[in-house]
Amino acid sequence: MLAARRINPLFRNIEKTVKNYDRHVSTGSSLLSMDVANEPDVPKMVTDIPGPKSKQLIKELAQIQNVGAVHFFCDYDNSHGNYLADVDGNVMLDLYTQISSLPLGYNHPAIINAVSKPENLSTFVNRPALGVYPPADWVSRLQNALLSVCPPGMTKVQTMACGACSVEHGLKAIFIKYMNDQRSGEAPSMEEMDSCRVNKAPGSPPLTILSFDNGFHGRTMGALACTHSKWLHKLDLPQPDWPVVRFPDLKYPLECNTAENKAEESKVLEEVEDKIEEYNKKGLPVAGIIIEPVQCEGGDNFASKEFFQGLRDITNKRKIGFLVDEVQTGCGVTGKFWAHEHFNLTDTPDVVTFSKKMLTGGFYQKESFIPKEGYRIFNTWVGDPGKIALLEEVVKVIKEENLLDNVKVTGNYLLSNLEQMQTKYPGILSKARGLGTLCAVDFPDAATRDKVIGYLRAKGVHTGACGEATLRFRPTLLFQNKHVDLFMERFDDVLSQVKK
Amino acid sequence: MLAARRINPLFRNIEKTVKNYDRHVSTGSSLLSMDVANEPDVPKMVTDIPGPKSKQLIKELAQIQNVGAVHFFCDYDNSHGNYLADVDGNVMLDLYTQISSLPLGYNHPAIINAVSKPENLSTFVNRPALGVYPPADWVSRLQNALLSVCPPGMTKVQTMACGACSVEHGLKAIFIKYMNDQRSGEAPSMEEMDSCRVNKAPGSPPLTILSFDNGFHGRTMGALACTHSKWLHKLDLPQPDWPVVRFPDLKYPLECNTAENKAEESKVLEEVEDKIEEYNKKGLPVAGIIIEPVQCEGGDNFASKEFFQGLRDITNKRKIGFLVDEVQTGCGVTGKFWAHEHFNLTDTPDVVTFSKKMLTGGFYQKESFIPKEGYRIFNTWVGDPGKIALLEEVVKVIKEENLLDNVKVTGNYLLSNLEQMQTKYPGILSKARGLGTLCAVDFPDAATRDKVIGYLRAKGVHTGACGEATLRFRPTLLFQNKHVDLFMERFDDVLSQVKK
Repeated sequence: MLAARRINPLFRNIEKTVKNYDRHVSTGSSLLSMDVANEPDVPKMVTDIPGPKSKQLIKELAQIQNVGAVHFFCDYDNSHGNYLADVDGNVMLDLYTQISSLPLGYNHPAIINAVSKPENLSTFVNRPALGVYPPADWVSRLQNALLSVCPPGMTKVQTMACGACSVEHGLKAIFIKYMNDQRSGEAPSMEEMDSCRVNKAPGSPPLTILSFDNGFHGRTMGALACTHSKWLHKLDLPQPDWPVVRFPDLKYPLECNTAENKAEESKVLEEVEDKIEEYNKKGLPVAGIIIEPVQCEGGDNFASKEFFQGLRDITNKRKIGFLVDEVQTGCGVTGKFWAHEHFNLTDTPDVVTFSKKMLTGGFYQKESFIPKEGYRIFNTWVGDPGKIALLEEVVKVIKEENLLDNVKVTGNYLLSNLEQMQTKYPGILSKARGLGTLCAVDFPDAATRDKVIGYLRAKGVHTGACGEATLRFRPTLLFQNKHVDLFMERFDDVLSQVKK
Repeated sequence: MLAARRINPLFRNIEKTVKNYDRHVSTGSSLLSMDVANEPDVPKMVTDIPGPKSKQLIKELAQIQNVGAVHFFCDYDNSHGNYLADVDGNVMLDLYTQISSLPLGYNHPAIINAVSKPENLSTFVNRPALGVYPPADWVSRLQNALLSVCPPGMTKVQTMACGACSVEHGLKAIFIKYMNDQRSGEAPSMEEMDSCRVNKAPGSPPLTILSFDNGFHGRTMGALACTHSKWLHKLDLPQPDWPVVRFPDLKYPLECNTAENKAEESKVLEEVEDKIEEYNKKGLPVAGIIIEPVQCEGGDNFASKEFFQGLRDITNKRKIGFLVDEVQTGCGVTGKFWAHEHFNLTDTPDVVTFSKKMLTGGFYQKESFIPKEGYRIFNTWVGDPGKIALLEEVVKVIKEENLLDNVKVTGNYLLSNLEQMQTKYPGILSKARGLGTLCAVDFPDAATRDKVIGYLRAKGVHTGACGEATLRFRPTLLFQNKHVDLFMERFDDVLSQVKK
C-alpha cells in the first residue's frame, strides 16, 4: 500500500508540495498557502464545456439518475488552489468553488496532510455514532475546529451532517425552548407525550417560524418551509402555513441611499411585527425567526445592521428564537468569521447554523436553547469526525495565514473593480455589491447573465448565478488580487462582446 | 508524513494487518476477514462503565453540548473487528455497533486500505458538489458500490448524506410523481409556480404520506412526520396531519401463529384502505405509504411477506408511491442484501432508502419517480464520494467472503440460542425473533431489560435497546457462532442473576 503510494506520480507531486508547505509553516515564513500550491498562472481551455469526455460521462450517469444539474465532470487530481480541472483537460479559474463550499481550494497541502496523518487514520476508518460513543479526541477536536471560531458570546455547538439538517435541528431547538417556556420548565403531561406520537396537539403544537421571501435554508421539509427562492425547490410539496415577510428591497450603492433604505427597512420590521400578531391571533404562534445575513441563493440581497438589530430586538421582546443561517455566509467569506459579526447585535443570535466551507454541518446555540433531555437533537451520526479533522486544519490555516485579512483586501479590490466595470457598462451591469469576497452584480435579465457566464467559462473563468439575474462571486479564502485582475480582463472582453 | 506513518506503532500494526489481508485476498484463501483482523478472543473489563476517563470527558463535553445520550468515550485506535475499546481500557464484544452502522466492524483492513490508497487521496481531500461537478470516477463508483447491489428490478440511485435526508428526498420524489400524474405530465401553471414559493396551494398541495405507528424514519420534519416510536423524538414540534395506521401486532413464534397473524394483518390492510379513503375525502390526499421491512427503533416488529405484498398491491391499485425504508434493515443484515427481498413483491418498491451500514445515505427509485427537471432532488453535496469509496470496498468484501451466507448461519444460530434461553427463562424472555442477525427478544418491562443490558456490559458485552422492553442485536456482518457462544454464556449468567 505504501509502496504503491510512493510510486503514484500524482502522490509524489502532492507529497513534495506538502513537504514544502510544512517547511514554510515551520520556518514561519510568510505564505498565502505557498501562493497557492501548484496552481497554474492562467486558465487553459482546450474544448467547449462540457467537452466530449464530460458529455460521454453525463450520458452514462443519465442511465442512473437525473443529470439536469450536471455542468461537467471534473478531474480533481489535477485541480489546484483556485483552479478547477475538468475531464477534458480544461483548467478554469473557479469563482464558484463547488457552490461556495471550498475554504482553501483544491488539493490544499494542509488538507492532504490531515487525510494522510497516521494519528487521524482511525478517524476516517471508523465513523462513530457521535452522540453516544464519541472518540477520545472529540472534545479537543470540537475545541480546535469549532469553539476556537465561535461567534462572539457563544460557547455551545452541535455538529450535524449538512446544512439542511443543521437548520432542521436548529428549528427544533427553538420549538422545544418555546414550549419549555410555555410550561415554565415543568415536565410535559401524559396527554402531550401521547398525542405527539401521532402528530396531534397538544404534544405537537401548531407552532410556526417566520421567514423571508427569497430566503434559502435547505430542501428538507422543515428547512424548505422557510425557503422561498425558486419554484423548482418547492413545487408539488406539501408545506405548512408559516408566515413569510418580504426581505427589504434596498437601493445600491447602500452608502448613497441610506435614508430611503432605512425607511424601507423600518417598514419591513413593522410588517414582521404585524405578521407575528396575525399568526399568533389565528392560533399559529410564531416561535422564531430565521434569516440569512445576506440572502445568497435568492440573489445576494443585503440589509443593514440596523435591520438585523431590529429583528434581534423584536425576537427578544417577544421571547421567540432568532436563528441566523450562516451556511453560505460563514467561515470568513465576508472578512469576519461570521457575517453577523458585522451587525453588532445587542445580544447573540439564539442559533447560528453552518455548513459548506465549514466542511461539516452544525449549529452554535445559546445554553438556554439546548434541550434538557438527551436524544431530542440527535441522529445516528450527528456529523462526522472525519470532517472535523479537516476543519481543524482549515481553521489553523485561516488563523496562521490571516486569511480574513486576505478576504478583506481581495474583496475590496473585487468590489471596486466591479463598480468601475458597472460605470463602463451602465446598460448591462447594475447593483455591484459585496462584503468581503461575497460579491455580486446584476444583469438586465437572466438570458444576458447566463450568456455572460457561458462566455466567461469559454475564456476559462467559472462563475455562478443566483436570484433572477445576478452573477455571484464565491471564491476560496485564498483568492487574491492577481486572480481578480485575471477575471476582470476576461469580464471586460465578454461585456464588450455582449454590448454589441 | 510517510516517515511519521512508518514510525507510528498503531499504524505499523495496521499496516501489517493490511498486508496480510491483501495476501489472503490475492491467494484466494478462505477468510472471514482473517477471522476477524486483530480482534481479541474475549472481552476485557477493567472499570465500571463509564469509567473514570469517560466520566471526565463527559464532564468536559457537557460544557459544549447536551450529553444525555453519551454512554462512554471510545478508543477507536484499539477497537478491532467485533470488539469496541473504550478510553478506560475496557474492551467489549459489540452487538450494537454504533446503532447498527458498522458493516465490517472496527479498523477493517479493507477500509484502512481504501482510506490509504493513493488513487483515493483526492476523493477524501476534495468534496465536490456531486450534483453539478461530479468526479471522473463517479459513474464507476456508483456502479461498483451501489448498482452492483441494487434491489432486484431497480437500476436508478441517488446519493444523500444521511438516512433522514434520504427519506425526505424519497418522499419528495413521491409527491412530485403524484402531482405530475395529476397534471398528466403537463407543465405546471404560473399560479402553481407562484403559490408554492410562499407555501400556498395549488403549488404546495395538501398531500400526505401514510405511515405506521411505532415506525421510525428520521428526525427532520418530513421524516419525523412519519415517525411514531417515542415521544422524545416528537414532543413540542409542529407536525402535519398525516394518516397513521397501527402496525400488525403479531404473535411469536410466527410459524406457530399463522392463522391468527394472517387475520390481524388482513385487518390492518383494511385499516390502511379505510385511512386512505378518509384522508382523500377530507382533502388531504394520500400520495404514498412509507414502511420499514422490520420496525427497528419501534421494537423489532415483524410482519409477513403477504402483508407487504398487500401494501404493494394497494399502492399500485391506487397509483400512489410505496417507499420501503431500509436504513437499518439493508446491507445484508437479514441474510439478503435488502430485507424486502424476503417479501417476493409482485412489483419493486417505488423508492428504497438506505444509510447506516451503507456508510452513505441515498435511495433507489423507479425511473418514473425521477423528476424530469434538475435541481428538484438536490442539495450542495448530495452525498460524499469519500463514503462511496469506502462502500465500494465493503461491497467487495461482502461478495468475496460470502458474508450474506455468514449472516444466515450466524443468524440462525443466534435465534435458536435465544429460543433455548427463552425456554430456560420463561418469566423473563419472550418473543425471540429474527431474520439473519437482526434478532431481538423481549423482557417483561424496560427496567428488567435495562438492568440486563447493564449487567451484560459489566461482563464485556455491549448491546442495545429498542421499543418498550426489547433487547436488539445489531452485530457486524462478520459476527460468527463463536461470538454467539461468548454472548450466550454471559447472557445465561446474567439471566440467572436477574431471575433470583
